Amino acid sequence: GPVSTIVRELRCMCLTTTPGIHPRMITKMQVVAAGPQCSKVEVVATLKNKKEVCLDPETPVMKKIIQKMLDSGRKTD
Amino acid sequence: GPVSTIVRELRCMCLTTTPGIHPRMITKMQVVAAGPQCSKVEVVATLKNKKEVCLDPETPVMKKIIQKMLDSGRKTD
Repeated sequence: GPVSTIVRELRCMCLTTTPGIHPRMITKMQVVAAGPQCSKVEVVATLKNKKEVCLDPETPVMKKIIQKMLDSGRKTD
Repeated sequence: GPVSTIVRELRCMCLTTTPGIHPRMITKMQVVAAGPQCSKVEVVATLKNKKEVCLDPETPVMKKIIQKMLDSGRKTD
């Protein structure tokens, strides 16, 4: 809801990141730009089990995951 | 809140996409994988003015925007 949204906007969401997440487990990925709320970019992945984990935005696997999600849209065209 | 989340999960969020969004205007980007709720990947961008717009995941500019957001995290290291 709105209250939790406001709280989230005032600080960094990711204190630690989780390695070894398989792209197949990810249903949603949020990339939040650096800004007043946090000096670094943050990547939050929602998994099939509904859990949210933070991913390290600077790893090559991170970019591969995003690419995989974007490419997955192509098969329906 | 939970109710709106459930509603959003049951169908596609993006009926149309907005072209010409400048990466500088984007504070948050959500990439939602194709799944039971929607047969295509969806990209929702939150802009600095708090509005949400859908972006076309298949354009080269889309990939450039995500790359730009991920790269923006590097300057703080």
